[in-house]
Amino acid sequence: MAKRKLETCFSPALFEPATHSDSIIVVLDVLRASSAIVTAFANGAAEIIPVGEAEVAREYKNRGYLVAAERDGFVLDFADFGNSPFNFTKEKVEGKTIVYSTTNGTGIIGLASAGFMTAIGSFLNLTALSEWLIKSDRDVLLFCAGWKNKFNLEDTVCAGAIAQRLIESTLYSSICDSTWAAMDLWSLARPDINSYIEKAAQRTRLRDKNLDDCITFCLTSDFTKSIPVMKNGLLVENML
Amino acid sequence: MAKRKLETCFSPALFEPATHSDSIIVVLDVLRASSAIVTAFANGAAEIIPVGEAEVAREYKNRGYLVAAERDGFVLDFADFGNSPFNFTKEKVEGKTIVYSTTNGTGIIGLASAGFMTAIGSFLNLTALSEWLIKSDRDVLLFCAGWKNKFNLEDTVCAGAIAQRLIESTLYSSICDSTWAAMDLWSLARPDINSYIEKAAQRTRLRDKNLDDCITFCLTSDFTKSIPVMKNGLLVENML
Repeated sequence: MAKRKLETCFSPALFEPATHSDSIIVVLDVLRASSAIVTAFANGAAEIIPVGEAEVAREYKNRGYLVAAERDGFVLDFADFGNSPFNFTKEKVEGKTIVYSTTNGTGIIGLASAGFMTAIGSFLNLTALSEWLIKSDRDVLLFCAGWKNKFNLEDTVCAGAIAQRLIESTLYSSICDSTWAAMDLWSLARPDINSYIEKAAQRTRLRDKNLDDCITFCLTSDFTKSIPVMKNGLLVENML
Repeated sequence: MAKRKLETCFSPALFEPATHSDSIIVVLDVLRASSAIVTAFANGAAEIIPVGEAEVAREYKNRGYLVAAERDGFVLDFADFGNSPFNFTKEKVEGKTIVYSTTNGTGIIGLASAGFMTAIGSFLNLTALSEWLIKSDRDVLLFCAGWKNKFNLEDTVCAGAIAQRLIESTLYSSICDSTWAAMDLWSLARPDINSYIEKAAQRTRLRDKNLDDCITFCLTSDFTKSIPVMKNGLLVENML
């Protein structure tokens, strides 16, 4: 039996939509958008409307929606809260529709719509997501959000952690150097992921803005079995 | 004293010319263009004219130049030889001007002209190049050619090998996740670089075309002290 294809993309600038139209595309923006989205569903959010433009998010706010919106780590003035997963508490999000706009994360979700299906990945749902992918009958692209089109370490090692599960299942193969590099970097990060991510540029950026309280949480594996997926323009809990 | 900046770019698609105008840009296309160029100068080539378009290379051939030109690993019909460093023997190249056009390598040399200076890097000139960079008073960008805009392992681990020398000199610092990833991958590859590169896609492509005889050579450190640099549109031996 032919194995399914596994590929990894390190940046939106490297994304080739036409080659992934039949793949499940897993969006990874570990610090912090994808971790926040996964946390929202773990805490019972009904659905998330991803929005690129801040002005569109503002219009939703004016119409009475709960809005999470940040740029470069800072909460936009009209928003209810920003991008930390700690904002998406059960008290705030359970049963709610949330409008969500971030610097990187929501733009990449739009790009990923070129695939067969979009799922949101993070360390927080690592095992559940990997097992779901393995059960699927689809090629997989691990799509790292990076930062302003740059490669980043935190999304890459998360891609490596997922890739390792998929390759070990023996149902997937990869001829993609990015996938092997991600798995190799994960092998170095795995023994102490918090120490490893100390050298990441985003670690420093968040510390400089006093926004780093959630990093250890974002690097924690298997907080939840939630797998957010896109359906009809909305992020919802996967019901496969 | 402020340290000099070291950055790494994994693909031409990620290159941001405006941010590197004061940097020495080191072009890395280990399998095989940059290894071939370094070998040509080690064997006494006078100068190399890098040419993007195959048709331009053909015109040079018609005017009597020695022409090395390949696409996807295969020698173009009008060319004297292709892209293997084994072609650039002393007998063929000593004292000669060579016109050179490859799939990836010569395009990226054009992009790199946005920097202060372009140098050609490879394992073959690893120590000489690193020491020359350390003696310079310049920021450095390690620019991996990749393959058709994709990340590749062989250029990345070579970038990591150079980066390690520069960081260890204590004259350079990096806030670039790509640099740290390259150094980490080099730490894994270093004990047995030939085995490590077995998983690289370009390794497989060259084997499939029976063009892999030169790979072990291309992965050999310090064959030469030659440092090819661009001057007035020509590659020449560095005379700094």
